[in-house]
Amino acid sequence: MVSINIYDKVTEIAKRRGFFWPSFEIYGGLSGFVTYGNLGTKLKRNIENAWREFFVRRQGFLELEAPIINASRVFEASGHLDHFKEHMVECTRCGRSFRADHLIEEKTGLENVEAMGGDAIRELLAEHEIRCPRCGGALKEPVMFLTMFQTTIGATGGEVGYARPEAAQGMFLNFRRGFQQAREKLPFALAQTGKVLRNEISPRRGMLRLREFTIMELELFFDPQEPSCPWFNEVSGEEVSLLTEEMEAEGEKTPLKVSLGEAVEAGHILTEWQAYFMGVSKRFISHLGVPPDRQRFRAHLPEERSHYSAQTYDHEVLLESWGWTEIAGHAYRTDYDLKAHQRGSGVDMTVLRPDGTRFIPHVVEPSFGLDRLLYVVLESSYQRRKKRDILALPRSLAPINVSVLPLVTKDGLSEKAAEVRELLLDAGLVVAYDESGSIGRRYARSDEVGTPLAVTIDYDTLENDTVTIRDRDSWSQVRQRIADLPGLLRRYLKGEIEFSELGSPV
Amino acid sequence: MVSINIYDKVTEIAKRRGFFWPSFEIYGGLSGFVTYGNLGTKLKRNIENAWREFFVRRQGFLELEAPIINASRVFEASGHLDHFKEHMVECTRCGRSFRADHLIEEKTGLENVEAMGGDAIRELLAEHEIRCPRCGGALKEPVMFLTMFQTTIGATGGEVGYARPEAAQGMFLNFRRGFQQAREKLPFALAQTGKVLRNEISPRRGMLRLREFTIMELELFFDPQEPSCPWFNEVSGEEVSLLTEEMEAEGEKTPLKVSLGEAVEAGHILTEWQAYFMGVSKRFISHLGVPPDRQRFRAHLPEERSHYSAQTYDHEVLLESWGWTEIAGHAYRTDYDLKAHQRGSGVDMTVLRPDGTRFIPHVVEPSFGLDRLLYVVLESSYQRRKKRDILALPRSLAPINVSVLPLVTKDGLSEKAAEVRELLLDAGLVVAYDESGSIGRRYARSDEVGTPLAVTIDYDTLENDTVTIRDRDSWSQVRQRIADLPGLLRRYLKGEIEFSELGSPV
Repeated sequence: MVSINIYDKVTEIAKRRGFFWPSFEIYGGLSGFVTYGNLGTKLKRNIENAWREFFVRRQGFLELEAPIINASRVFEASGHLDHFKEHMVECTRCGRSFRADHLIEEKTGLENVEAMGGDAIRELLAEHEIRCPRCGGALKEPVMFLTMFQTTIGATGGEVGYARPEAAQGMFLNFRRGFQQAREKLPFALAQTGKVLRNEISPRRGMLRLREFTIMELELFFDPQEPSCPWFNEVSGEEVSLLTEEMEAEGEKTPLKVSLGEAVEAGHILTEWQAYFMGVSKRFISHLGVPPDRQRFRAHLPEERSHYSAQTYDHEVLLESWGWTEIAGHAYRTDYDLKAHQRGSGVDMTVLRPDGTRFIPHVVEPSFGLDRLLYVVLESSYQRRKKRDILALPRSLAPINVSVLPLVTKDGLSEKAAEVRELLLDAGLVVAYDESGSIGRRYARSDEVGTPLAVTIDYDTLENDTVTIRDRDSWSQVRQRIADLPGLLRRYLKGEIEFSELGSPV
Repeated sequence: MVSINIYDKVTEIAKRRGFFWPSFEIYGGLSGFVTYGNLGTKLKRNIENAWREFFVRRQGFLELEAPIINASRVFEASGHLDHFKEHMVECTRCGRSFRADHLIEEKTGLENVEAMGGDAIRELLAEHEIRCPRCGGALKEPVMFLTMFQTTIGATGGEVGYARPEAAQGMFLNFRRGFQQAREKLPFALAQTGKVLRNEISPRRGMLRLREFTIMELELFFDPQEPSCPWFNEVSGEEVSLLTEEMEAEGEKTPLKVSLGEAVEAGHILTEWQAYFMGVSKRFISHLGVPPDRQRFRAHLPEERSHYSAQTYDHEVLLESWGWTEIAGHAYRTDYDLKAHQRGSGVDMTVLRPDGTRFIPHVVEPSFGLDRLLYVVLESSYQRRKKRDILALPRSLAPINVSVLPLVTKDGLSEKAAEVRELLLDAGLVVAYDESGSIGRRYARSDEVGTPLAVTIDYDTLENDTVTIRDRDSWSQVRQRIADLPGLLRRYLKGEIEFSELGSPV
């Protein structure tokens, strides 16, 4: 079993310092919901902005924002009303409900029981005599439970609606508008971030399985007869660890180390576009602070794949807390969804080739769960140094850019520090001002939330308008003129210069 | 009646160019839902970022992100289950439902009928013999309809939940955590942006009344015995147009022109904090392109106010399409909500004064509807110049920073233009590359979506590595070295330099 001490530690800091905590605390809580505090909201936004840099802005892909609540027709057509279900068992005694596959996994140590299907699940429940984990009562026969939140739109005569369980359908519904905005040329992509909801039967593992979470999703539309990606050469040399479908089927646990170019060549990855996004994905996750050797791509077996997918690779990262954990899915959705909505709506989803033939575009989708990613970033950045907790967050992600600390609050140092704070605010930085407690205690507080730099105003500042700048990671300090702080700090936070270039050693 | 031609024009551009359009088009639509395209998603984010600059970052206020779906206990305690209702009438013949107050307003020209209350509404319906606007059928007696979306959380034994109709409750539920993060000092604020949902009975007016929309909300917690705002002097001289509660009661239509300082002094605005946010609000909306003389603050009459408010000023802007339109509410919520949740949850919401007394903090709330604001920004920026449609968006808000246009696609100009695009992408800009059609047509396309600058690569570029830069607003052009573009364009977009400083006149 993997250790969960680091999970407890990270969530303790998260709760105490205001990254995140369970929602509805004052009403006794409600599992599957999380609330972000000041630092978490900012960190989440910074991760989302980084995603947009890696996946959207440079490529010039199009963005989209579609509603969370959708008419039921959407999910009838997409197949979700038929397929977005889990095997549920209910206790005959206490009435609580559970996911059958999870109970089996807990009892037997088996993995991925969901993929085994309903018959196997029924047999395993019986064979292992699985009972209610809460009260020990007997369980009813498993039934399929639709894990979408249902509601009614409008008053009398209103219609059934569902909260979306993925953002993707918004892109498919609006394919024709996107195509028009892309000047009727393929390939193009629609990208969307936003809330999605899944009515999980009995959510566990905190941030890893939420009922309401934020997704970052992109649908790349292409002609299957012209499947090449113009930017593939940028990532084709990137080495990845793959657990292919064949390896999964054979129970092989040691991943194949292979370049993305070779993986496409050998047929391990079905399309260049999918491989391209897997390469970008690896770079993005590395940028968030997860080393390449703690990343791998694991293929879904056919039984495990979603109803729309011809091939899915989960991007997994190795967490100290939870072991290998999915943080993204790379799915080759083919023309499944556009075809489904063409059928459901009667609207033509075909595109004309120069040779006069018509076809429905194929789709490749990289999809990230932002809340999980935020947890991954926190755990990956966590360090224990000289009995202190430090979040060594990548400097571009840290929720606070700089702490401003007067050495003491008397003799005008507070006032001088307030001036420095205003100067840094003018420069667009996110600044934390802290004057309570010893300077050592304040450095520790600043380190604990991952603030890369601390600027200290001392008695010399009153003499010569210089301050010390302290590095979260090395705890070393340099001295610099106040007037030069805005430009230097901005360059440091962008990664253009190193700490030693911020001033002269103290 | 006000003209709605500009509304039609702006929504036509919005739909065609990809700012926004009605959702679920391929399934025949569903009123009250909007989908944002590439330009709309980016514009919306830029407005949200501007809000954060005006209301959050400089003040060092805390951010929060709470769930959309809430346990019913939350809205029982907050009073929403009792009060968040509208007078609904149902047609006896076609079964459609309508808001009674809206039908009366349409028939009689009366304003703000909702505030008159249920008895008046019943009398007016009868007096004016109002029938179904769709089929002419007789209407049933009005009933109160709860305009929150309801759902069930969890499977069997699950509990009733509602989608939040405002973000504010998230801040009240998490007051104690916020207070802890604010180091147990008042005043402090919690700010949140996110989706909210209101199950409107029969939504009309497109972007102005949506069932799903984005709110930008802030709750400022303070001690009513120490109601002063430390930054009030920054805005106290700001002149505003007020329609006070007394003026409203007397039917006075000409607003009072008064400084915010005087308005507090005279008791027109109950607290400095509320006046402070009204001042920031005016500056924010001016920054978005609405001139001060098209802004006013209108007080709610007691009957019109929400159940939690002791004073509300709507911030209204004068639209050419819809007349005076609410874009923000400034509510003095007192201790209503914290008290309600203390009662509902049993959790202590009091704070200790140095003198040992305990009290529940008071709350002032500025709340903006982002979707409306986006429409306001588009309409305010719309210009017709020499038979062309132009969106003169504030340069910091424009979804695309710069268009890159090769004069022709031959002789290596496309390749050179691609290099320029890469250079500007490296500089972090949002770039549109366009090489199809005449250069005049491409300038027009660029102007129509509000892109402030267009960089054109011509034959001289191949000679001397200079390009022309064209101004959306004056259509004048300057010439500049490619290498200097990144720095100059960034400064221009931040508003640090004017167009004439971008190069030498052509």
